Amino acid sequence: MTVNETITNLAIAARRAARSLGTLSSAVKDRALLKMAVALDAQRDKLRAENDKDLASGRAQGLSAAMLDRLSLTDKAIDSMIAGLKEVAALPDPVGEITEMHRRPNGMRVGRMRIPLGVIGMIYESRPNVTVDAAALCLKAGNAILLRGGSEAIHSNLALAQLMQEVLTGEGIPAAAVQVIPTTDREAVTAMLKLEEHIDLIIPRGGEGLIRFVAENSRIPVLKHYKGVCHIFVDESADLTMAGDIVINAKAQRPGVCNALETLLVHRAIAPRALPVLGERLKEAQVELRGCPETCALLPYAVPATEADWPAEYLDLILAVRVVDDLDAALDHIARYGSLHTESIITASYANAQRFLREVDSSSVMVNASTRFSDGGQFGLGAEIGISTTKLHAYGPMGLKELTTKKFIVYGDGQIRN
Amino acid sequence: MTVNETITNLAIAARRAARSLGTLSSAVKDRALLKMAVALDAQRDKLRAENDKDLASGRAQGLSAAMLDRLSLTDKAIDSMIAGLKEVAALPDPVGEITEMHRRPNGMRVGRMRIPLGVIGMIYESRPNVTVDAAALCLKAGNAILLRGGSEAIHSNLALAQLMQEVLTGEGIPAAAVQVIPTTDREAVTAMLKLEEHIDLIIPRGGEGLIRFVAENSRIPVLKHYKGVCHIFVDESADLTMAGDIVINAKAQRPGVCNALETLLVHRAIAPRALPVLGERLKEAQVELRGCPETCALLPYAVPATEADWPAEYLDLILAVRVVDDLDAALDHIARYGSLHTESIITASYANAQRFLREVDSSSVMVNASTRFSDGGQFGLGAEIGISTTKLHAYGPMGLKELTTKKFIVYGDGQIRN
Repeated sequence: MTVNETITNLAIAARRAARSLGTLSSAVKDRALLKMAVALDAQRDKLRAENDKDLASGRAQGLSAAMLDRLSLTDKAIDSMIAGLKEVAALPDPVGEITEMHRRPNGMRVGRMRIPLGVIGMIYESRPNVTVDAAALCLKAGNAILLRGGSEAIHSNLALAQLMQEVLTGEGIPAAAVQVIPTTDREAVTAMLKLEEHIDLIIPRGGEGLIRFVAENSRIPVLKHYKGVCHIFVDESADLTMAGDIVINAKAQRPGVCNALETLLVHRAIAPRALPVLGERLKEAQVELRGCPETCALLPYAVPATEADWPAEYLDLILAVRVVDDLDAALDHIARYGSLHTESIITASYANAQRFLREVDSSSVMVNASTRFSDGGQFGLGAEIGISTTKLHAYGPMGLKELTTKKFIVYGDGQIRN
Repeated sequence: MTVNETITNLAIAARRAARSLGTLSSAVKDRALLKMAVALDAQRDKLRAENDKDLASGRAQGLSAAMLDRLSLTDKAIDSMIAGLKEVAALPDPVGEITEMHRRPNGMRVGRMRIPLGVIGMIYESRPNVTVDAAALCLKAGNAILLRGGSEAIHSNLALAQLMQEVLTGEGIPAAAVQVIPTTDREAVTAMLKLEEHIDLIIPRGGEGLIRFVAENSRIPVLKHYKGVCHIFVDESADLTMAGDIVINAKAQRPGVCNALETLLVHRAIAPRALPVLGERLKEAQVELRGCPETCALLPYAVPATEADWPAEYLDLILAVRVVDDLDAALDHIARYGSLHTESIITASYANAQRFLREVDSSSVMVNASTRFSDGGQFGLGAEIGISTTKLHAYGPMGLKELTTKKFIVYGDGQIRN
């Protein structure tokens, strides 16, 4: 069997499974999720044995310590998957919700019913916990999932899939609801991206290179974000203690993630007071500053920024800093260099807060809060399957609802059209 | 300037216009729409003169009478565009609506704000009224629109665009909010479909050939439906008078449209009673029947159906008819041959009505109503820019809301993440 045939068969099985998943009761789905949690706990040794194979070959291939860390199914990693399954089981089932039901002049009632999307293809890199986290969300939303993890995690991913499939079968749910692609062949990704008849949505998670490859080669809709070039604008009226707390948190609490701060914009009127205070705190936090000429004039320890710094996603303890004329100049800078991910304004002005919320086009727009809150869990979605900076279908953190759609339903009693 | 450069420049202008459209007040947008209605009424002669050029070259090219009819800007066609503009002006503005606002445990308030998608590309065939109808909906939803109509309507479309742009300029709205692509070069479509940085969504309307071409060549998300193979299932318990009224209406009231009935499924238990009654009425309405062997045995005037009849979209007075064992068999038939457009069950059974609504995966699912109601206006959306049978973003008739998305907004008072 060619790689193409293998993938096509998996996708056809997923499509078949999806038809029955859409009609499962919440109780059946939740019981399966909770039994998966029990099985994960019971099979730690077995999972670790498979994971050891991945770790051994990772070491042999010279993976970095950070990569090996992400790959490792430690007790903590397994605990976190177990907690995730329980959390998803406890979330309300989005499927079947009926909204906007209203009576038409001819007496017909028209509304919308929430339904699963169908089959989701997930393409991701090293961390095997994504296998369980993503499968749980897809199952709860009534979708079948086809998982393509990194080749370095293949033994771990296959073991996790087998565990989940055993539970599914025991609960009378088609095992093809959760499938890990068994081949590590790179061709498998390309093959998957062509199956628009069998797969409804592709969600890639990983580095920008992977995501660009997926976006450019997919005939299936893709929900994704390339990068997070997040901005904070310190307005003229900002409280400087609040500004300092938020800027430090946004930049330094966890600099390697997509909702970390990358560019700080400061209103010209407050810059001479604000920058020394903020600069001092950033220096203490060991953040390297790359400043516009005005910033560098105020902060001798800032290095001059170049044009390349404004669109940069450092994912590191580096921050671009620019003094801007006013709110309009901040909005222009964000429109030009932003990545539609997350921006925040620090202000005491009611009018400027409202303008910023309305006029910034990003998927998450905040007033007086750290960009680090841009996350499905923090926003109250319960869990997150990814973040989208594409405006179609979902924009921002995606939870269960974003894995569903709505169909129109009509209750008539014999209506015909004139 | 090459075709590519022309299209890119138009798209960049649209993107620039879109930034300010998103913040226009409803009053400004509605006033522009109403002034467009006034201008259409005042400029009938001028529009007709431009339309005459299209009609003359259409006749010279040997267009069919039906094509010329669709192309013609009669008084009735202009009245209908005027009515459409007034209707859209009267609809509630979807932009700025805030939903799901709630307080997080840390006191931060998180909600979602409805915003425009940005730039919409519309690709359509002969009817020039689409130029105004689509522009009105896009403008009301705060989007810029780039219109690519059929080459046979180019003079009419450019005249309509000029009229709308004059109104926009007069109201202080960027004229690039509504642009008709001036070249009739086929290359223009291909060029447009590659501009994923400047265009957010493509909506093609027309024949299956056009839509497949767009879907296969677009790097931009496409909302579309290829065809409507709509089914009615006459259940065992159906009221036969109601079934007859609905079947005749769905098939014969306007057979050339996508929500017309194409396949009739009849429960075996009622077939010997139902088919002679339904068959007689269909024969009176001059509908040709293509039946399964059982249908043909009951109705001597039915011709035997072949496998090609089940997925066929006739758009004509032809109907495929099949006797099925029960509801499950009807669901299987629809899952296999349906187009995810519209299906209806005629039944007196509460349980079967609910199962049909839940289990049929189509974008519109009905009980005891004609499939002809599957339409944005009939469903109460106010107006319709098209129908989607793709599950991402919008499924079924698309109105104003489907031309928008939602961003997350956060009101904080200094929150940072632990």
